[in-house]
Amino acid sequence: MFFKQFYDNNLSQASYLIGCQRTGEAMIIDPIRDLTKYMEVADEEGFTITQAAETHIHADFASGIRDVAEKLNASIYVSGEGDDDLNYKNMPQQTHFVRHQDTIYVGNIKLEVLHTPGHTPESISFLLTDEGVGSNIPMGLFSGDFIFVGDIGRPDLLEKAVQMKGSTEVGAKQMYQSVNSVKDLPDYIQIWPGHGAGSPCGKALGAVPISTLGYEKINNWAFNVTEEATFIETLTSNQPAPPHHFAQMKQINQFGMNMYQPYNVYPSLNNERIAFDLRSKEAFHGGHAQGTINIPYNHNFINQIGWYLDYNKDIDLIGDKATVEEAVHTLQLIGFENVAGYRLPQTTIMTSSIHSADMTGKETNVLDVRNNEEWNQGHLEQAVNIPHGKLLNESIPFDKNDKIYVHCQSGVRSSIAIGILEYRGFTNIVNVSEGYKDFPLALK
Amino acid sequence: MFFKQFYDNNLSQASYLIGCQRTGEAMIIDPIRDLTKYMEVADEEGFTITQAAETHIHADFASGIRDVAEKLNASIYVSGEGDDDLNYKNMPQQTHFVRHQDTIYVGNIKLEVLHTPGHTPESISFLLTDEGVGSNIPMGLFSGDFIFVGDIGRPDLLEKAVQMKGSTEVGAKQMYQSVNSVKDLPDYIQIWPGHGAGSPCGKALGAVPISTLGYEKINNWAFNVTEEATFIETLTSNQPAPPHHFAQMKQINQFGMNMYQPYNVYPSLNNERIAFDLRSKEAFHGGHAQGTINIPYNHNFINQIGWYLDYNKDIDLIGDKATVEEAVHTLQLIGFENVAGYRLPQTTIMTSSIHSADMTGKETNVLDVRNNEEWNQGHLEQAVNIPHGKLLNESIPFDKNDKIYVHCQSGVRSSIAIGILEYRGFTNIVNVSEGYKDFPLALK
Amino acid sequence: MFFKQFYDNNLSQASYLIGCQRTGEAMIIDPIRDLTKYMEVADEEGFTITQAAETHIHADFASGIRDVAEKLNASIYVSGEGDDDLNYKNMPQQTHFVRHQDTIYVGNIKLEVLHTPGHTPESISFLLTDEGVGSNIPMGLFSGDFIFVGDIGRPDLLEKAVQMKGSTEVGAKQMYQSVNSVKDLPDYIQIWPGHGAGSPCGKALGAVPISTLGYEKINNWAFNVTEEATFIETLTSNQPAPPHHFAQMKQINQFGMNMYQPYNVYPSLNNERIAFDLRSKEAFHGGHAQGTINIPYNHNFINQIGWYLDYNKDIDLIGDKATVEEAVHTLQLIGFENVAGYRLPQTTIMTSSIHSADMTGKETNVLDVRNNEEWNQGHLEQAVNIPHGKLLNESIPFDKNDKIYVHCQSGVRSSIAIGILEYRGFTNIVNVSEGYKDFPLALK
Amino acid sequence: MFFKQFYDNNLSQASYLIGCQRTGEAMIIDPIRDLTKYMEVADEEGFTITQAAETHIHADFASGIRDVAEKLNASIYVSGEGDDDLNYKNMPQQTHFVRHQDTIYVGNIKLEVLHTPGHTPESISFLLTDEGVGSNIPMGLFSGDFIFVGDIGRPDLLEKAVQMKGSTEVGAKQMYQSVNSVKDLPDYIQIWPGHGAGSPCGKALGAVPISTLGYEKINNWAFNVTEEATFIETLTSNQPAPPHHFAQMKQINQFGMNMYQPYNVYPSLNNERIAFDLRSKEAFHGGHAQGTINIPYNHNFINQIGWYLDYNKDIDLIGDKATVEEAVHTLQLIGFENVAGYRLPQTTIMTSSIHSADMTGKETNVLDVRNNEEWNQGHLEQAVNIPHGKLLNESIPFDKNDKIYVHCQSGVRSSIAIGILEYRGFTNIVNVSEGYKDFPLALK
Repeated sequence: MFFKQFYDNNLSQASYLIGCQRTGEAMIIDPIRDLTKYMEVADEEGFTITQAAETHIHADFASGIRDVAEKLNASIYVSGEGDDDLNYKNMPQQTHFVRHQDTIYVGNIKLEVLHTPGHTPESISFLLTDEGVGSNIPMGLFSGDFIFVGDIGRPDLLEKAVQMKGSTEVGAKQMYQSVNSVKDLPDYIQIWPGHGAGSPCGKALGAVPISTLGYEKINNWAFNVTEEATFIETLTSNQPAPPHHFAQMKQINQFGMNMYQPYNVYPSLNNERIAFDLRSKEAFHGGHAQGTINIPYNHNFINQIGWYLDYNKDIDLIGDKATVEEAVHTLQLIGFENVAGYRLPQTTIMTSSIHSADMTGKETNVLDVRNNEEWNQGHLEQAVNIPHGKLLNESIPFDKNDKIYVHCQSGVRSSIAIGILEYRGFTNIVNVSEGYKDFPLALK
Repeated sequence: MFFKQFYDNNLSQASYLIGCQRTGEAMIIDPIRDLTKYMEVADEEGFTITQAAETHIHADFASGIRDVAEKLNASIYVSGEGDDDLNYKNMPQQTHFVRHQDTIYVGNIKLEVLHTPGHTPESISFLLTDEGVGSNIPMGLFSGDFIFVGDIGRPDLLEKAVQMKGSTEVGAKQMYQSVNSVKDLPDYIQIWPGHGAGSPCGKALGAVPISTLGYEKINNWAFNVTEEATFIETLTSNQPAPPHHFAQMKQINQFGMNMYQPYNVYPSLNNERIAFDLRSKEAFHGGHAQGTINIPYNHNFINQIGWYLDYNKDIDLIGDKATVEEAVHTLQLIGFENVAGYRLPQTTIMTSSIHSADMTGKETNVLDVRNNEEWNQGHLEQAVNIPHGKLLNESIPFDKNDKIYVHCQSGVRSSIAIGILEYRGFTNIVNVSEGYKDFPLALK
Repeated sequence: MFFKQFYDNNLSQASYLIGCQRTGEAMIIDPIRDLTKYMEVADEEGFTITQAAETHIHADFASGIRDVAEKLNASIYVSGEGDDDLNYKNMPQQTHFVRHQDTIYVGNIKLEVLHTPGHTPESISFLLTDEGVGSNIPMGLFSGDFIFVGDIGRPDLLEKAVQMKGSTEVGAKQMYQSVNSVKDLPDYIQIWPGHGAGSPCGKALGAVPISTLGYEKINNWAFNVTEEATFIETLTSNQPAPPHHFAQMKQINQFGMNMYQPYNVYPSLNNERIAFDLRSKEAFHGGHAQGTINIPYNHNFINQIGWYLDYNKDIDLIGDKATVEEAVHTLQLIGFENVAGYRLPQTTIMTSSIHSADMTGKETNVLDVRNNEEWNQGHLEQAVNIPHGKLLNESIPFDKNDKIYVHCQSGVRSSIAIGILEYRGFTNIVNVSEGYKDFPLALK
Repeated sequence: MFFKQFYDNNLSQASYLIGCQRTGEAMIIDPIRDLTKYMEVADEEGFTITQAAETHIHADFASGIRDVAEKLNASIYVSGEGDDDLNYKNMPQQTHFVRHQDTIYVGNIKLEVLHTPGHTPESISFLLTDEGVGSNIPMGLFSGDFIFVGDIGRPDLLEKAVQMKGSTEVGAKQMYQSVNSVKDLPDYIQIWPGHGAGSPCGKALGAVPISTLGYEKINNWAFNVTEEATFIETLTSNQPAPPHHFAQMKQINQFGMNMYQPYNVYPSLNNERIAFDLRSKEAFHGGHAQGTINIPYNHNFINQIGWYLDYNKDIDLIGDKATVEEAVHTLQLIGFENVAGYRLPQTTIMTSSIHSADMTGKETNVLDVRNNEEWNQGHLEQAVNIPHGKLLNESIPFDKNDKIYVHCQSGVRSSIAIGILEYRGFTNIVNVSEGYKDFPLALK
């Protein structure tokens, strides 16, 4: 058996290619839209991709499962469990809806379906046994967003992202049962999760790509809280608000979108359009065009820009052409294909900055763009709190010419806020550079 | 003034970017469909592409002039000369139709339009004066397919590719006049041609990218044949037959096609489709799939595959994914976007080969796939002549199981012919490897 | 904790980078010579490489452990176990010699040294506990060439590659004990091996990159043969002969070599030098230069060329420049830096081939280049057996003009043999293309 | 004949490959040290590089002529003209010293040597005639640093860079004669110069890569000043000071250095070493490490860093690894191979900046880092002038804690100066961002 994990750093997402050498067949588990890398490995290793399977309707990226069916004419396997209203629609004819304890074969590799709801009602996992080498014991579990390394999937996305009232509580209860349901599987099986560190699909995902059930039973909190109420309380508290694009992802993945194709971007002809500057925050603060918003193109790009994308509106990207092309591709992975143009960086505006250590506490207009949780744990007395993700649309209680001090916890989100405030017409903004963590102790 | 020649080896085609540093404006002359490289240089050098101009309706590649208008919102300049029936249709609103002695400015750079028909009736050239540095003498001539380095454009394409009866003769006469019309321009002006060595738009193009008018006046045959009839005779004789795709090019460039976008290709699901193997002829002969046709992906690719493309039918390409992707892109440059799938090479069939030196003259079934001109200059007595470009469709006077010896002049075209014969069902084919040039002297 | 496996397809070798996010320190386990990829990931993830550790003196590739010490000024950890004569010499001052049950920390990550001899006397493994997240149970074992996925390391390399009489038996006994010594470790720990499928350091390595101890206990033969003699017999039988470069590797890794630096290769000026053609066997057979040897540049390249390299002699490589550069780099990974020049492919000689199915059994001179084991399981009566790895130097019992039929099992090694025979002056060679496996049944 | 210009943007340098298709021989004119691109084109076009020629001992980059001799075993042609003391030493055995009116053949291409001193005493040009196609008139002139597009070579480098007293005057007289000596060559010949726009080997080089003699006769000032004294005055006045590395180049190119090989750079282990930050000035000012110097890696990199390199001292580079690798390679092109390590950017210090328009004229400590010429044309009354190239070593008349306003003409050189002042221990520096050109009119 051949096994390869594909880890997309932009999505903090893991997908997998497994192949049976005897038959030459291969399957993708949880494919992203762009199938290029899977095909390259399959070609290199001599496999034909005949199948794909998906653990659940993803909320954080656009699935490629339909592309596998349409473009590779492969059989695809998705969950037939859960509530029909919330389940897959408009699926291609190659689709198999599978249920708990169903069995799928990829050549001589057996996948047994386990219904493991909680993150979403239809979530399933796949327990793999490599019968091709004569094994009759399972090797590992494709656990999707059920079990992560060091954490489990959050149950509150449907409620927070698509306003399904009460679904958090239901999901948390299901998760409690799902966790219990796998406790009898052998310790030695590998856990092949759907996400890694940095993913907003959980709170505390580890940076080790693979774990084992036995290790998680001992080290993962979810296996060690035996009381249901405590489990639910722990699981549902302090889950950060999901970026705005999550709602769109559910829509796309439930109902489908156009097949993936790359597209070229040309110089922008419209300076009115909202524009995101992909450079580092240092470069942005050293010089940028008035009213453009800095979302550095790094591993946190999707998590940050996700707050500001309107899927019905075009955007511009600012950066050198090569970086813009990468960002355009990355945005396609969350189904956003409305990059209308690119612009080269300008150096017009230098950001006014002060070091956090130089805050006196006497500044009049202080805007704190941290989350509510952070705010609740301590803040400047005179500050106003608007979480950065709401800054584009909410009313801001300052005059356009007020000198506004903007800070967050460590300087990343306030950097973004500078551009948004400029975009909204404020003209006298000061970036408090290192953030609340480096404020003088006397002020905290 | 900034000046850069872009030479596309696959098309043997030259295009140009010129820019005025004072105003930041730049113009493309004779753009291909994929504008990426022009944009990259413009970005790097600090220019905005505000304009594009085209010397004529190209017959050998798909023009990007409409893409420049639509994607970059640039003004475009095309010929308003020549016969209306044959001229540009469906042009975007940014189009300027220019005529003899019209003047175009790119910042401080002046282009004067010269009507120089012959290759086609509407052909124009652009005489450049760099007024930005105070010059009032011309620097060079964008001569399109009028003057090449060492040759001039052929006048017979409309007749041969789109069956315009009598147009060769008309064109040759016009060319005689066009050549005469530029003889009074100064010797020192540079000649910036539209094609280089290998292009089928002329017979004997040189591999030096740029020339001067004075040098051409002395070394180019066309400036040294003063008698009109001899000029016409020389120009029209021995022009090789144009590949089949030329007709399609005229259509595309006169009437337009969709804007350029890249596209991904997936593994082929259909083994019935005609398939072209992109590997070297050595690799093909060492092992290939039955009935597939070898067109090596090298600088001659377009000239060769052009004979066999049907723009209404899908094709497959055979090769590693990276080479296939390059070939797909190259085919887009001639407007062909029907690559439906790719296949990895197989090693099933080894070609039977004999060295040309081992030909005895007693072989019964000999197929000579050279041009008529080559055939006329000498051939094996018992041979049958079908030029390689017609092999796909014409009837072939052998039985499917006959042992057929296939040769050309040097071994390149017979390599292609092997695959076509297999495709058409012949089963016992021998490749005569070095071609007629290495036949035993006694047989010639 | 951060964890990443680096898998080198050319060496079938796995190395690892682990990092402690709290302290920013990272360690490489079993580094190859070129440290580029480790540095890139460390930079990207914000780590400084402060340490490296090695499981044993590798026999199949050139270690980069000394480069880490010298170039990154990092602490390095190597085995202080085993016989002093066979152990590390000339180590840099940053070296720590570690022994059974020693403890190493990378930030808050603990590595416990286990002496696990058998593959070599000094072999150690590292048992990792991620104390940074508060765990006090081990997560996994860097098992080097002790435990692979589905197999264990071979104990016969010292004897076969460097003529240490009797060491195979000693190693096999040690391996028996080493395997027993880890049986009490928990089932859930991950096994992070030093090699994967295709490595000649074992017989039957799996293509799954990571396993668990519990899974191996059940599925790996070595944990299921409890009787010592049977264990030794199974382990030592049918181990294929190691390629010639293995002896050199032991030398390099025990005593050191120059630090890694890339180097450029220029066109060859010497046609007398031995030359290896990197193209596919199809391309080679379709046309090659007389007397050159075909070793296709694919994942098997090192295993094959290793048989023919003389570390005291220069070689030429044949191929396009990009492939040659990759091959030059790959050869540096086994410490070979004597590529003196490159040549472009020629098409002079086409290989004579017949399909295996067309063998009649009446061919007079048949050369079987398979291993002795394969030969012993069946061969043509009149055939002569010289394993391909010995063909360059052993005497060959045919006349230079004899028509020689060369075959192997599947066509790969006979392809190589064609070139070697040409190199040695034979002039009339026929490649039996698919090999013994496709011979007519009547002949077997 | 095949002809290709290679333009190196980092050096603003042009070299050439010409080849004779009939014989397969090719020659490089004025090669840089890294021969990779020449070899790639030669391979692609089917040429063997058999020769190289050089127009003069270059002062601005490290020549590759010896590499061609040693690595490709090609014949090389250098000037045998000029003063023996200043001429080539330690040349390889493949060297031919050529003199005025000597003839060199590359296949059927003839090069006639013209002694054209002025830029340097030994400078020669090569007049090319393509006899292969039967031409007996010249096609073009490889003019080295004699004639550029729109300018001619400066005669003052030996005096300014290597302190040869009086050589400027001598060179200017020679140049006057050299210019006159080519006036009788035909107008139509192409001028193939050794440098383009941005090169400090002249004052006003154009951005058009190729010109013609006739065009230059009319538009180039040097052909239009007929009076010798005026010619000399014009040629020698206002030539900017050459960067420091020019002296080293003369040394390297006259006496030779080691053959080119690439080398890898590792993370720096020494924070005391002088370090150059390769990022944009915006990124540098947005955040950098104290005392590091910003030389953005763009086309001006060599011209700027050349002022600060000490060929006997190691340096560090700051940037992402890919950019550092490019910069290391570029520095090798000027023979500098002492990059000892690289560092990732830090964000510690934000530059204090004010807009030039906000200067009041009342600032006490103003440092003007422009050239003497610029200073002489107008400056702030209270300012002190130290040209940026001398800032690293000259004494600076301010206290370490003084608030110093630093400006140049447009903001580029003051950006560099910020880092140098920090490096030298100044702690309170203000960057006047747009420079003198945007100062309030009242202050000028």
